[in-house]
Amino acid sequence: MKNLSTLILVLIVFQVNAQQRNLAEKLGYAPNDKLLIIHADDIGLAHSENIATVAAMKNGVVNSTSIMMPSPWATEVAELVKDMPDIDLGVHITLTDEWFNYRWGPISSKSEVSGLVGEDGYFHFDCASVAQNASPEEVEKEMRAQIDAAIAIGIKPTHLDSHMGCVFSGRPEFVASYLRLAEEYGIPAMVVEELYQGVVVPNQELFAGIDLNQVKIVDNVAIGSPEIYDSIGLSAYYTDLLKNLQPGLNVLLIHVAYDDEEMRAITTRFDHWHARWRQKDFDFFTSERAKKLLEENNIKLVTWKEIGKL
Amino acid sequence: MKNLSTLILVLIVFQVNAQQRNLAEKLGYAPNDKLLIIHADDIGLAHSENIATVAAMKNGVVNSTSIMMPSPWATEVAELVKDMPDIDLGVHITLTDEWFNYRWGPISSKSEVSGLVGEDGYFHFDCASVAQNASPEEVEKEMRAQIDAAIAIGIKPTHLDSHMGCVFSGRPEFVASYLRLAEEYGIPAMVVEELYQGVVVPNQELFAGIDLNQVKIVDNVAIGSPEIYDSIGLSAYYTDLLKNLQPGLNVLLIHVAYDDEEMRAITTRFDHWHARWRQKDFDFFTSERAKKLLEENNIKLVTWKEIGKL
Repeated sequence: MKNLSTLILVLIVFQVNAQQRNLAEKLGYAPNDKLLIIHADDIGLAHSENIATVAAMKNGVVNSTSIMMPSPWATEVAELVKDMPDIDLGVHITLTDEWFNYRWGPISSKSEVSGLVGEDGYFHFDCASVAQNASPEEVEKEMRAQIDAAIAIGIKPTHLDSHMGCVFSGRPEFVASYLRLAEEYGIPAMVVEELYQGVVVPNQELFAGIDLNQVKIVDNVAIGSPEIYDSIGLSAYYTDLLKNLQPGLNVLLIHVAYDDEEMRAITTRFDHWHARWRQKDFDFFTSERAKKLLEENNIKLVTWKEIGKL
Repeated sequence: MKNLSTLILVLIVFQVNAQQRNLAEKLGYAPNDKLLIIHADDIGLAHSENIATVAAMKNGVVNSTSIMMPSPWATEVAELVKDMPDIDLGVHITLTDEWFNYRWGPISSKSEVSGLVGEDGYFHFDCASVAQNASPEEVEKEMRAQIDAAIAIGIKPTHLDSHMGCVFSGRPEFVASYLRLAEEYGIPAMVVEELYQGVVVPNQELFAGIDLNQVKIVDNVAIGSPEIYDSIGLSAYYTDLLKNLQPGLNVLLIHVAYDDEEMRAITTRFDHWHARWRQKDFDFFTSERAKKLLEENNIKLVTWKEIGKL
C-alpha cells in the first residue's frame, strides 16, 4: 500500500518579488491586481474527466487545463476541444500511474525507458520510485515523447506542468530537462515541487545551476488537500481562497470529473482525489456562486498562453 | 474510415467428423448431445465490460470469457474474479485497437514490435494492417507477452482466442505461433478465421504444415453480425440459435457490457458492436428466458477448461 501522502501535490511558493510585479504589469494589469489561473489538472485521464473538464471550461470558470498523454483517453481530448481554438491546454507531464485497477505506461518504448516501468510493465505508482529508478535521460526522453504526442494529435501545448510533482521528486536533472524542454518548445513550465502540507521551502539543490530569473514564477499556487477535504471541505476552502486572494499571479489547481461509475472505478481505494472530490470541483467551478465570487472580489482570470507570449 | 466489415469475426466451421464425436464423448457426453460454450469476448476492454461480464457469469448463463491484456482495465479483471477460482478465462490475443478515442498499444516494448504499432504510437486499427506490417516474430513476441502478463496478474488462462481474428489475417506464421504457444502453455486455442458473412471456407494455405488433428476443433461457432443486428435483432437470433442448436461442440461468441457513458464513448462512431449491442447481449444472457431456452432444448454448457483437460 503506497503512502497516499505522496499524492499531495504542493507547489513552491516563491516570495513576491520585483520580477513578479513586472510579470503582472507585462500582462497588462496593475501591480496590485489579483490574477488567477483556474487550472484543471488531469484532462485525458478518463472519459469522465475529459467531458467534465471541457464542460467546466465552456460553462464554468475553469480557464486552463493540462493533458496526461500516456492515458488511453488522451486522443479524445483532441476531438473534444476542436471547437475551442483558444483553449489554454498544456502537457501534464505524467511519469506515474497511481491507480490500482487502471494501468498504463510510457509513450516511449519500454526498453528505452525501463527505469520508468515497474516489474508489472506499467508506470510506477509514485514519484519516489521514479526518482529512485529512472535516469535523467529516460525522464527527458519520455517528457519529450509526451509533448510530441500531444502535438501529433493536433494540440498546441500552452505550458508544461508535472503530474504529482514527479519532476521535482529529488533529482535536479529532471528539473533541468523540464525547463530546457519548455524553452525548446517555447512555452512556460510551471515550477512545482512536491512538498508536504503546504510547507514552503524552495529546494536550493533541486534548482542547482538554474537561473531562476529565466523561469516564469507564479506568486502563489493553491490546491485542496486531504486535510482540507476532511475538515472544512472544498467548497468552503475555495470560497475563502477567492475572498482572500492575494495580488499577483495565482494558480489554483483543481481536478474536474463526474462522480460516475468509470471515475469511481479508477479511483477505487482512494480516500481523496476520488470521483466525489472531482465532482465537487466540477460543481463549485460551474456554479453561479463561483462566477459571483470572481466578480465581487475583482479577480482577473489569466492563462498560461498569455504568460507564454511574454 | 476503416471498413467495419473487418470487425466481423467469423470462425472456421469444420465439418463434424469422427474426431469431434470423440471430443463430445471424451467430455462425458453422448455423441448427439448439444454442447455449448457461451463465451463473452473482450473482458478487460473497459470497466463497463468488466463488471457486466462478471455479472453475466455470476447471475446469467455466460460461462466463459477471454481477456484483452493491452487494455488499461485488464488488471481490474484479476481483482473482480478473485472469488471465482473455477472461472473459464482465456487470453483474447489482441493485436489491434479499433476504437477512435480510446487508444493503446502492445505490452511488449514498442521498438521490439514496431510493426504492430502505427505512426501514432498505438496499435493499428485493423487486422489487414497487422498482416501487412508486423513480422511473425513480432506477433509471437506480443502474443507471449500477453499470456505472461495475464499469468503475472494471477490469471490461469484456460484457452487462447484471437480478437477480431487477427491471428488469421493472412499469414500462416501467425497461426503457427498461436498454436505453438497454446501447446507450450498447455491450453487449447480456438481456431478462428476472419471470414465474411459466415461463408465457410477453410483456408488451406493459412494452415499449411499444421496437423489439424492436433488442434481442438469446435463443430460450430456462432456470432451475431451487423446484418442480424439490423434485421431480426440479436434477441431473435439467439432464441432461434438455441432452439435449433446442432449436436456437437458449439461456441457462441457474445460481447457483454453496459450501455453507459464509458462504453458509449469507447464505441463512438461505431454502428455495431457498440454499447447498445453489448447491453442487449447482457440483457439476453442474464434473462430467465435464456435459462429456460437452455433447459427446454436440453443444451449442456461446457467450458474451455474441460476441453483443455482432455
